Amino acid sequence: MDYRQQSLKIHEEKKGKVEVTSKVKVENKDDLSIAYTPGVAEPCRKIHENPAEVYKYTSKGNLVAVVTDGSAVLGLGNIGPQAAMPVMEGKAILFKEFADIDAFPICLNAQNIDEIVNTVKTIAPTFGGINLEDISAPRCFEIEKKLKEELDIPVFHDDQHGTAIVVTAGLINSLKLVDKNISNIKVVVNGAGSAGIAIVKMLLNLGAKNILVCDKQGILYKGNCNNPYQEEIVEIVNKDSKKGTLEDALVDADVFIGVSAGNIVSQDMIKSMNNDPIVFAMANPIPEIMPDLAKEAGARVVGSGRSDFPNQINNVLAFPGIFKGALKVKAKEINEEMKLAAAYAIANIIEKNELKEDYVVPAPLDKRVVPKIAEAVAEAAKKTGAAKI
Amino acid sequence: MDYRQQSLKIHEEKKGKVEVTSKVKVENKDDLSIAYTPGVAEPCRKIHENPAEVYKYTSKGNLVAVVTDGSAVLGLGNIGPQAAMPVMEGKAILFKEFADIDAFPICLNAQNIDEIVNTVKTIAPTFGGINLEDISAPRCFEIEKKLKEELDIPVFHDDQHGTAIVVTAGLINSLKLVDKNISNIKVVVNGAGSAGIAIVKMLLNLGAKNILVCDKQGILYKGNCNNPYQEEIVEIVNKDSKKGTLEDALVDADVFIGVSAGNIVSQDMIKSMNNDPIVFAMANPIPEIMPDLAKEAGARVVGSGRSDFPNQINNVLAFPGIFKGALKVKAKEINEEMKLAAAYAIANIIEKNELKEDYVVPAPLDKRVVPKIAEAVAEAAKKTGAAKI
Repeated sequence: MDYRQQSLKIHEEKKGKVEVTSKVKVENKDDLSIAYTPGVAEPCRKIHENPAEVYKYTSKGNLVAVVTDGSAVLGLGNIGPQAAMPVMEGKAILFKEFADIDAFPICLNAQNIDEIVNTVKTIAPTFGGINLEDISAPRCFEIEKKLKEELDIPVFHDDQHGTAIVVTAGLINSLKLVDKNISNIKVVVNGAGSAGIAIVKMLLNLGAKNILVCDKQGILYKGNCNNPYQEEIVEIVNKDSKKGTLEDALVDADVFIGVSAGNIVSQDMIKSMNNDPIVFAMANPIPEIMPDLAKEAGARVVGSGRSDFPNQINNVLAFPGIFKGALKVKAKEINEEMKLAAAYAIANIIEKNELKEDYVVPAPLDKRVVPKIAEAVAEAAKKTGAAKI
Repeated sequence: MDYRQQSLKIHEEKKGKVEVTSKVKVENKDDLSIAYTPGVAEPCRKIHENPAEVYKYTSKGNLVAVVTDGSAVLGLGNIGPQAAMPVMEGKAILFKEFADIDAFPICLNAQNIDEIVNTVKTIAPTFGGINLEDISAPRCFEIEKKLKEELDIPVFHDDQHGTAIVVTAGLINSLKLVDKNISNIKVVVNGAGSAGIAIVKMLLNLGAKNILVCDKQGILYKGNCNNPYQEEIVEIVNKDSKKGTLEDALVDADVFIGVSAGNIVSQDMIKSMNNDPIVFAMANPIPEIMPDLAKEAGARVVGSGRSDFPNQINNVLAFPGIFKGALKVKAKEINEEMKLAAAYAIANIIEKNELKEDYVVPAPLDKRVVPKIAEAVAEAAKKTGAAKI
């Protein structure tokens, strides 16, 4: 039986994946009087007197909403909120299994930006953090921006930042292997959607100076962008308005990062890159170039989204630890410094003597990852004033 | 240590009461590929093809949102959404412990009717049912009405209907004891808020012909109501515009039902009632008249909200089984017939030979209650066309 059939079977047998359980017993009258009325009035009163105590007496501080409108689910596109539910439940249980965070799927019957923002704002009192998921670009940028302005809890669009953080971690380690410096290399990012834009922003924060961003129309410049978010980026990275195809862009590039579509990079294109090419081909399930073909064409480090090849670039490496760290210090946001700290923490899991071409990012199930990221993120939150304690 | 101190201690130690756990294991790459990508795409696809299959492959069918705006929390009043969280968490765990339903607290940062309705509508795809909780009257009536119109899942304001169902169950059994018929008795309901209004409606459905509704201003008639919902009721029950105090109303009454305030019924008022008075004095924690004083004054059956006296009228007797039955048949609503079926099911838990003045409703922790109600409610849903299967 393949994964698809097994997945159907398990989902049907269990009727979904999340369960809401109790941390306290309710077996007799006394239990009832403590967990519910009349005893429960006391923590209510305390929180009413001092709202900050909601973190002391309720689950809020460990609750994350996994919010989607179902508009960009996996490779399936705009399948709507109900069909997105299995993914959101999956995400929720990963939060629990990897970081002991209680995450709950919230599938929204709305695709209008303001409706989404208003709904999430309105349900926010229950939660310590908001993980936005599978919301299509460019709406995702504005939704996240507005929610960050309005809420005093972390709002994090994982498709953007989770991916960017893991790619950045992989790149940090790859550059050690090829002995190049981020400020001197040429990077080509193909796919200027939510993940692509976030990756470019993060690489700029990391110190990259030479980035070309491509989309279906080739190299993006001021005149051919699809939305203001792409324009904002090319105004920084393509001031000279370089034009051309992805093929043109790749000539002499040190790094290719693909968050686009399958089979669009040829072996010849890899061969046209600078020495020791680094290739992260993350289209799923079919990468921009199959990892073995990229290797054969001379790529020194190759990563992909697939679990059957080395260097799987998987968001699960990032989001559990990031939220863990943010929640730990009751961070009011997840800022750029916290994201960079997470990337370095992931990269540094791999010791110098372990680091090699086939091992630039830890395995998704590596138990060391979450505590290390959480610590680094909490530290960065404190340093930057994002922590509320 | 009293309940209040114990409650504070437990809430702080556990940091709240709800936890979101996984029904499936995620221990290795295969698990990850089945519960999450790439396998999860398959149930998504199936639901996209046939939306009804969301009940087959996700947790939706067993998920209930416990929704509040924090405007009428216990006896604490309008304490807001964050301070209401301990109560909503408490309710959620009661759903789990009593009926194995996965319920999740949703505390809304909004007290405007349309904002509340829109928010609940928007998050509805995740849930199989909506339990409204601690929303003040008269807003609660309109919110519930609008949501019932808009959603095809059960919407149930427990403060109204849960209370009404348990009171009705107690009354059904009490009338057996005193050998009176619902159609011949005089009932006084004091307190015309959410619970009071719902109780009156349910007693009308049960066959009551003679009901007086009182509020702070005394007997309600067309000219002295506080809102259109009270007016609607008095147009049915007080066509002659009887006027007077609660004391006047109680003269010759067979039944007193209090959902109002402590210590407002005297022993003399009980003595002025008809023979074999039935008294449900449910103000909490101080009843309208203390149960022992009511007994001493001649009340034949006495119930209250307190666990330290016989006949505790507690919502927990109703809502877990009602939702269990409604979810079982994917009911699109919880209609009047389903509520009455629940009341009879609760009443009938107590066999003829067990029935006595001090035992007209089952104990809140009686394990027989939930399956009996669920069965009766599911049956009523099928008979009335509310069931979707």
